[in-house]
Amino acid sequence: MVKPRIDEEYVQMDAVDWQLFPDAFSAGGIRWKLLHVSPESGEWTAIYDCPAGSSFNAHIHVGPGEYFLTKGRMDVRGGVDEGGSTAIAPGYGYESCNARHDKTNFPVDSEFYMTFQGPLQFIEEDGTTIAVIGWEQAQGAWDALTGATAKAAE
Amino acid sequence: MVKPRIDEEYVQMDAVDWQLFPDAFSAGGIRWKLLHVSPESGEWTAIYDCPAGSSFNAHIHVGPGEYFLTKGRMDVRGGVDEGGSTAIAPGYGYESCNARHDKTNFPVDSEFYMTFQGPLQFIEEDGTTIAVIGWEQAQGAWDALTGATAKAAE
Amino acid sequence: MVKPRIDEEYVQMDAVDWQLFPDAFSAGGIRWKLLHVSPESGEWTAIYDCPAGSSFNAHIHVGPGEYFLTKGRMDVRGGVDEGGSTAIAPGYGYESCNARHDKTNFPVDSEFYMTFQGPLQFIEEDGTTIAVIGWEQAQGAWDALTGATAKAAE
Amino acid sequence: MVKPRIDEEYVQMDAVDWQLFPDAFSAGGIRWKLLHVSPESGEWTAIYDCPAGSSFNAHIHVGPGEYFLTKGRMDVRGGVDEGGSTAIAPGYGYESCNARHDKTNFPVDSEFYMTFQGPLQFIEEDGTTIAVIGWEQAQGAWDALTGATAKAAE
Repeated sequence: MVKPRIDEEYVQMDAVDWQLFPDAFSAGGIRWKLLHVSPESGEWTAIYDCPAGSSFNAHIHVGPGEYFLTKGRMDVRGGVDEGGSTAIAPGYGYESCNARHDKTNFPVDSEFYMTFQGPLQFIEEDGTTIAVIGWEQAQGAWDALTGATAKAAE
Repeated sequence: MVKPRIDEEYVQMDAVDWQLFPDAFSAGGIRWKLLHVSPESGEWTAIYDCPAGSSFNAHIHVGPGEYFLTKGRMDVRGGVDEGGSTAIAPGYGYESCNARHDKTNFPVDSEFYMTFQGPLQFIEEDGTTIAVIGWEQAQGAWDALTGATAKAAE
Repeated sequence: MVKPRIDEEYVQMDAVDWQLFPDAFSAGGIRWKLLHVSPESGEWTAIYDCPAGSSFNAHIHVGPGEYFLTKGRMDVRGGVDEGGSTAIAPGYGYESCNARHDKTNFPVDSEFYMTFQGPLQFIEEDGTTIAVIGWEQAQGAWDALTGATAKAAE
Repeated sequence: MVKPRIDEEYVQMDAVDWQLFPDAFSAGGIRWKLLHVSPESGEWTAIYDCPAGSSFNAHIHVGPGEYFLTKGRMDVRGGVDEGGSTAIAPGYGYESCNARHDKTNFPVDSEFYMTFQGPLQFIEEDGTTIAVIGWEQAQGAWDALTGATAKAAE
């Protein structure tokens, strides 16, 4: 019953290979590195490499998220021309709980780091849920891509 | 840009009328009182009155939740006979992030208070998402039931 | 690297003995039961039994907290007569992040359940910090009172 | 009583001037930009510019924090030579709830972005609390440095 403190973690980011982000949820060759998952609270952290012309499919941020755009440009919620935000590196953004992102586009080669509190709910145009992607699904996808489970079992 | 501190809140619980919980998500006449929503973090708090024989439909706790059963009995995740928990008042339970509750039944008249971090994802037996019910949907349902929006607009 | 889901928990509350709450932080014989700690997020949950005339020493809620007063009366932040809240069972309260409680008094025998996000910072009248009591300190105090660590080591 | 959704935020980071981080809590000329505060949950986000030879004073992370070191090198908890972590850009770190950082040093010019859940508790060597710095104190310090309050009042 006596619970220990959670361990600290460190990831040497340039020692981790980029993996393709599932094309069920993105287009144009977006790649990612999963950096951390928090099974208790459901938070997770990743960095994304987004080639010019790439985009994420429509989704709702079920909990708040924060991004740090380190390279390029990101049009969020349609970009400033459509009432959303246009981030230009170096840019910081806070996406609030239940923010709906119908369009997230990268007009130039871009990179951003993001902390997520809770899942992304990918949706159809009419709002129907396609999938709810939280820490567990993110970890599962990452493990499948990198073979972590297989290695752990050897 | 300078943000104020959030206000404290107090609810005299016996001065609030019970409302029927939507029967899209429950059966047997469950009633509730929504006590609090946290728009920033997506947390919400409610108390439920569950007649003998009532139940909640299958759902996933997208974030962790904690309950305090003040009256009666609640069979969670099928109850102890099926590998879940059987709570008997006074009982406390921690439902972890991503806990799946295919069956939550109340064999006798029961009452419980619960704090939710993030939404409930109601699902079909095959896992298909029916609805994701978070602070905003809970508040919307409560407002519709109690006419809060209409009163605010008068 | 692959993290498991957190376990669910259940506590049969009437099977746990009340323990005296440390008198460094309270007066008048307050007793408690620690129900849960969340080492990752720093949250913790407890129920308090507060005899008539008892009180908590001055403290700041470093994160938000929610209480459910199941019995009696609690004067929070001095009570309504001094601009605070007076809770009468059954009452619900949301104490926001950084709420300062110079006086929390129980004029009659009372009981409340509370979820804490983050620690309590006990302070002197001039604001000097006496102690910061979070999940880890709460667990340590509870273990010392109940001998949990000793039992675990047997 | 009907609460609105929280607004999204965007900060063009290179349009914000660096400010000196209070020397009560650091040495060697560390500068910062406060990017976000969350009054409800007590979270806050900042980026730090740390010249060669600079350091943070001893502190405890009262809640978990995550950093993204974008430039240079950071010796955390004494660095790897003393059982801690040594981050080399680009590096990601998760500092868990209650992690104690007696020494955080920057041997070369460095920069890191960090999200904090809850406050930093700055301490003396013997553990005595000097100050608990959360979203509200961070915002207050930032406002004093940038004159935000004064501007808002004009």
